[in-house]
Amino acid sequence: MSRNLFLKNWTLESSGFSVKTNRAYEGLFTQGSGYLHVRGSLEEPLPNDSQANTYLRMPANVTAEKFIEGKSKWGTYIPGLFGNHPTLGREMINLPYSLGIVLKAGYEQLNMETSEVHEFSRMLDLKNALLRRSFRWQTKFGVEILVVFDRFVSQARPGMIFQRVEIISDKDINLNIQGGIDSDVRTSGFDHFKKVNFACVNSQILACDVNTDNDENIQVATEFVADGVEWICKIGERAAEFNSAFLLQAGKKLILEKRSAYSTSRDTADSSATEKLKSSACQTWKSLLHEHCQIWNRWWDACDVTITGNREDQDAIRCAMYHMLRSQSCGDTRIAVDAKGVAGDAYFGRYFWDTEMYLVPFFTYTMPSRAKDLTDFRIQSLEGARQNAKKYGYPGARYAWESDDKGNECCPCWQYADHEVHVTADVVYGIAHLDRAVPEWKYLEKEAAEVVVETAKYWLSRMNTRDGDDFPSLLGVMGPDEYSPISNNNAYTNNMVRFVLELGSRVGLSGGATEKEVELFSRMAEKLPIPRKDDLILQCEDFEKKADPLFEQFWPDRSGCYASAVSQERLYRSKNLKQADVLMMMFLFPNRFAKSQIELAWDYYLPYTTHDSSLSACVHSIIANRLDKCKEAYEFWEKGAFLDLDIEHGGASQGIHIAAAGGVWQMVIMGFAGMKTAFETDFFTLTPRLPETWRCLSFTVVWKGVPLFVEIDRREIKITNRGEKALDVFVGESFKVMPGQCKVIDIQEYR
Amino acid sequence: MSRNLFLKNWTLESSGFSVKTNRAYEGLFTQGSGYLHVRGSLEEPLPNDSQANTYLRMPANVTAEKFIEGKSKWGTYIPGLFGNHPTLGREMINLPYSLGIVLKAGYEQLNMETSEVHEFSRMLDLKNALLRRSFRWQTKFGVEILVVFDRFVSQARPGMIFQRVEIISDKDINLNIQGGIDSDVRTSGFDHFKKVNFACVNSQILACDVNTDNDENIQVATEFVADGVEWICKIGERAAEFNSAFLLQAGKKLILEKRSAYSTSRDTADSSATEKLKSSACQTWKSLLHEHCQIWNRWWDACDVTITGNREDQDAIRCAMYHMLRSQSCGDTRIAVDAKGVAGDAYFGRYFWDTEMYLVPFFTYTMPSRAKDLTDFRIQSLEGARQNAKKYGYPGARYAWESDDKGNECCPCWQYADHEVHVTADVVYGIAHLDRAVPEWKYLEKEAAEVVVETAKYWLSRMNTRDGDDFPSLLGVMGPDEYSPISNNNAYTNNMVRFVLELGSRVGLSGGATEKEVELFSRMAEKLPIPRKDDLILQCEDFEKKADPLFEQFWPDRSGCYASAVSQERLYRSKNLKQADVLMMMFLFPNRFAKSQIELAWDYYLPYTTHDSSLSACVHSIIANRLDKCKEAYEFWEKGAFLDLDIEHGGASQGIHIAAAGGVWQMVIMGFAGMKTAFETDFFTLTPRLPETWRCLSFTVVWKGVPLFVEIDRREIKITNRGEKALDVFVGESFKVMPGQCKVIDIQEYR
Repeated sequence: MSRNLFLKNWTLESSGFSVKTNRAYEGLFTQGSGYLHVRGSLEEPLPNDSQANTYLRMPANVTAEKFIEGKSKWGTYIPGLFGNHPTLGREMINLPYSLGIVLKAGYEQLNMETSEVHEFSRMLDLKNALLRRSFRWQTKFGVEILVVFDRFVSQARPGMIFQRVEIISDKDINLNIQGGIDSDVRTSGFDHFKKVNFACVNSQILACDVNTDNDENIQVATEFVADGVEWICKIGERAAEFNSAFLLQAGKKLILEKRSAYSTSRDTADSSATEKLKSSACQTWKSLLHEHCQIWNRWWDACDVTITGNREDQDAIRCAMYHMLRSQSCGDTRIAVDAKGVAGDAYFGRYFWDTEMYLVPFFTYTMPSRAKDLTDFRIQSLEGARQNAKKYGYPGARYAWESDDKGNECCPCWQYADHEVHVTADVVYGIAHLDRAVPEWKYLEKEAAEVVVETAKYWLSRMNTRDGDDFPSLLGVMGPDEYSPISNNNAYTNNMVRFVLELGSRVGLSGGATEKEVELFSRMAEKLPIPRKDDLILQCEDFEKKADPLFEQFWPDRSGCYASAVSQERLYRSKNLKQADVLMMMFLFPNRFAKSQIELAWDYYLPYTTHDSSLSACVHSIIANRLDKCKEAYEFWEKGAFLDLDIEHGGASQGIHIAAAGGVWQMVIMGFAGMKTAFETDFFTLTPRLPETWRCLSFTVVWKGVPLFVEIDRREIKITNRGEKALDVFVGESFKVMPGQCKVIDIQEYR
Repeated sequence: MSRNLFLKNWTLESSGFSVKTNRAYEGLFTQGSGYLHVRGSLEEPLPNDSQANTYLRMPANVTAEKFIEGKSKWGTYIPGLFGNHPTLGREMINLPYSLGIVLKAGYEQLNMETSEVHEFSRMLDLKNALLRRSFRWQTKFGVEILVVFDRFVSQARPGMIFQRVEIISDKDINLNIQGGIDSDVRTSGFDHFKKVNFACVNSQILACDVNTDNDENIQVATEFVADGVEWICKIGERAAEFNSAFLLQAGKKLILEKRSAYSTSRDTADSSATEKLKSSACQTWKSLLHEHCQIWNRWWDACDVTITGNREDQDAIRCAMYHMLRSQSCGDTRIAVDAKGVAGDAYFGRYFWDTEMYLVPFFTYTMPSRAKDLTDFRIQSLEGARQNAKKYGYPGARYAWESDDKGNECCPCWQYADHEVHVTADVVYGIAHLDRAVPEWKYLEKEAAEVVVETAKYWLSRMNTRDGDDFPSLLGVMGPDEYSPISNNNAYTNNMVRFVLELGSRVGLSGGATEKEVELFSRMAEKLPIPRKDDLILQCEDFEKKADPLFEQFWPDRSGCYASAVSQERLYRSKNLKQADVLMMMFLFPNRFAKSQIELAWDYYLPYTTHDSSLSACVHSIIANRLDKCKEAYEFWEKGAFLDLDIEHGGASQGIHIAAAGGVWQMVIMGFAGMKTAFETDFFTLTPRLPETWRCLSFTVVWKGVPLFVEIDRREIKITNRGEKALDVFVGESFKVMPGQCKVIDIQEYR
């Protein structure tokens, strides 16, 4: 696999610069703090690369959409700051860019495309979330200048970015440094800024005040910190900057800092951007970095996974975890994690089922409170879900396929918005999963019960009992497979809804349901059918009546996705699957299906599955492990674990595949280590099947409140209880691991 | 029925002015010449009623769309002049408005909303296509002024509009008259004008030159003609006008003319707008009107229908015919008739299946050459249909659901564009229908054969033979019923495609098919299934597996359409029909279905049919007549014949329901007179079932080249052969009517 990336311990490194791969690195090198995220764009612009291109994006299927792209894509995001797009609904706004630092040596301005640069290296330190760029710049006038840029988005100080540049020249040069705030940026071609004002707060601080089309206010402040450098402030209509020119003597190291801060009308704390800057004024770079790293180190302690024997796989899992840790909302339950991990505009900064299916599990078993942030987001947006139900003519609550912070449906494509209703049940699954993993919170006895009841009420009303049928049906739905837009009794959806109704019958009274309703939940849950033909679970009624997709004829070149090779119309009438659908159901409800049934479904659906969705490979890898198909399990790992690292094929250009990142973690922990989820069992259960190249796999998780450390190699499994309660384990047999104890299990023996 | 309309012989008249009904009258009073159409807007603007409101219309189902509407909607259209809309595709452009004449008496400017006006009357003379408005204007200063406006869009001089105003005041007044060209208009909220220039050509002629976003050029010229009045020209950015102020003496009649001309870069003749004006300069109003009326009188001679006994019904059929005659392209085969009869922007000026199903029949039996214009339009846009097929991955030709002049698919809603494929077969039906009606043209042996072959090739490739089936299927289609978006083996579509393939097997060799292909057409035609359950034709496979629409629950108030009462998602999974689907098929292929089958389908589908489409009632009325359900036939007539006349409910606000107008004619001729089409039989066949109130029905048609006149009353049918060939007739029995002969058939006798 050629990924154009050098992977070292804890770092992702790129050597050499190319315009072609620039956007992929920008996405991959995104830094963030929960509050604020910035793509890994260069400090200086590329030539002829406006960030202000305006165009009208139309409703489309993002999978198959061709994006209008420049050489780079600046992206600065505060999750929850949504604007109104005329064709696409509410979307997360791309904020003013404050990273800019432009260097000019004599008459030559540095840029990565045309300047002569040697020993270029760019690396993201995953452990500390620190981004460094270093190179030697050979100017046209024969001067060699060593430049090193460092930056981090402070985890300790929400909304603050710290940058540093070191410059050493081999000759005396007239150095010119510019940098400020550029608000002439667009969100996927659209300008959400209604009013922009700039002010020079003092000789060092430049401030920008923006009102959005959604009447939110954003403040950005930036300052340069450098001994003995004088700055001139220039204010334009959409951008403002500081400027300084001075002589840099040969061999003398210039160290310059740029500090930026963001604040918004959404903030719960009331420091303005300028106040944030001022309150950090007496802190050194070192101390600021230190407090930042401390948090990151604590996070990694709670979740790190090591893979010995395969460096690429090691880095894939660390990269995935880095971005999940970065994207978490750190306690802000007004937001969740959007589909691009706050690293791009492509999915509008909206929240999908990705949250419950792909992200909640990672946090549930590493930092359960952060998982609760995500499920609490659904509880606090219940009112939005109620409004959605009402708009469609139903009682209860109906979660949005593409949710904004308030739970409003923002999806502009009706086939998903109208029909992909399973998200409403997935939300409950996520809550129930967390509840089983952390039973002491009694989540489902309290605030979450209302979500169960309200969604169950929606489901009752969404069902039809057709003429001649003695059972209810869910008609006109789209399952996880988005290539089957309007189908009847989708097995995944029905099974998920059955689960919700069953749960509703158990916890309904706590959630405000009447006894009659509770009884009805139970009765309908039993009756909702799972379509099958003998032992084969059918994706939906009449799945077999669809056309053969004829992949050989229409999809000879598999470098692109199938959806781009054929018309949507052919897609919608054929047996092609975008991603796991029946298998996704079996992945989530392993106890409900016999192994032989899963095998049958695997054999039947796999030949039809295009894996056009980035969410497909991980589920297939995990199922393959469960079926002892170790070769396939690793093949799907390779297909799914490197999406963002696959620079040559675009990687994270449009943002991080954050749900797939959750899938990467699940492939390792639930797939290769074979950990059962708390949804399945109360015992910490492992069935390891390490890939050939992996000598050892170790990881930290929390099981029912007990932190523990697991080491797996070819011979044995070691489970260390790092908590204060006894741990119930099942590996071959059931036993207890006591606090502080390290239990060693001989793999040969239990097999 | 309260239609707020006074219907007199040959005129539609409105008394009283109301802002609420203004737009409906504008649509209803549209005048046009094939080349140019103008809505019946007032000469002077209403207060605070900008025509320049800009907004972004989004893809939607026009049936359920809420339009943004001002008090009036100026509309000036030249069919075929399309612009590029960012969200909706190509659309017909609303052109600069040249009708404006603003009167000011002293300080008071006339407007219909606030001025004191008595004896207001507005009437459209259908026979001569002349629009008159007259009223007495009582000014605040105690002056009474009689004003009469007349205008016509010249049928004799393409692109020219002639207006006249007569003014008599009871006191001396200072009269100010303004009028010019206003290009500050929008097409459904969008500005298609890239560049606008004005010029005063001379002291009398004002010219406007517009370049569109599609790089077409439009020229408009206007002049006032009035003895002894001096004009001052004022040019603004988007509008220009002449202005004159003078004393009008009490009792003296002022007669003023305004003449306007349009020319475009699409024209085949090369007179500019200004040249058109100049070449009419020496013609008087009377002579210009005379040459115009001559053409209209000739048209009416070829098609008039008289209904004695029910004045409203008489006017409904005349109104329908007026708009069809007006909308015809008069020999320009580069265009067809758009869905709003060139009287509004709502359907983007595009061509639908309406052409073949609803308009071709009227012209086929009244002015066959004009029917051929419409079918020739499909032949000349075959290349566009080929491109559409290619875009979807098919060989052959695939006609657009919403076609522009080039045959491009412009429909922005994928469910229609992708799935409502039956239009491709409907096009061939239209051609075949005309071919059978006018066999001497040998249309299908010549140019039209290629359309049959190319579309047949598309159909072969569009079919799938599913695993386990021994027959081909058309999967994932939308039939005429647009509430069933993606269905399998829609009976209407399959039957229509069978017909095309059968035809292809007969005329294929003339159209460039190989013998092998011709043989394949024939084989596949036989195999394509028409789904049924016992004797009931099913609209599609699994129609019965849809949900009950529960009209009582969700649609208690039937004043709005069902689609507005429920979500699209419920619509798409329920048995609700928008319009006739199986019955439409039976209407078009009467010989293929037994009466008992039609009765069964009627009984089964009618309770599910919402008639949300304006195309539903007419088919139901005709079928009801065939089933001897005379009461229902007339009920559906009443439902379908007055759409544009139903001012209180919006009527023609957004344009004329031109397909429904074709339906009105068909209800009378094919329904109540029971004329079989040439598609069914070679004999001129009648089975009259006159509604109770109709004493006599007479009409003129052409049958296989023979013009004839039919009179039907309670006792007898008179058929007069006005042609030069013998006419084969079947009424009770078959016989011949010789040229000049009037054959009288006693109805009691043959029954």
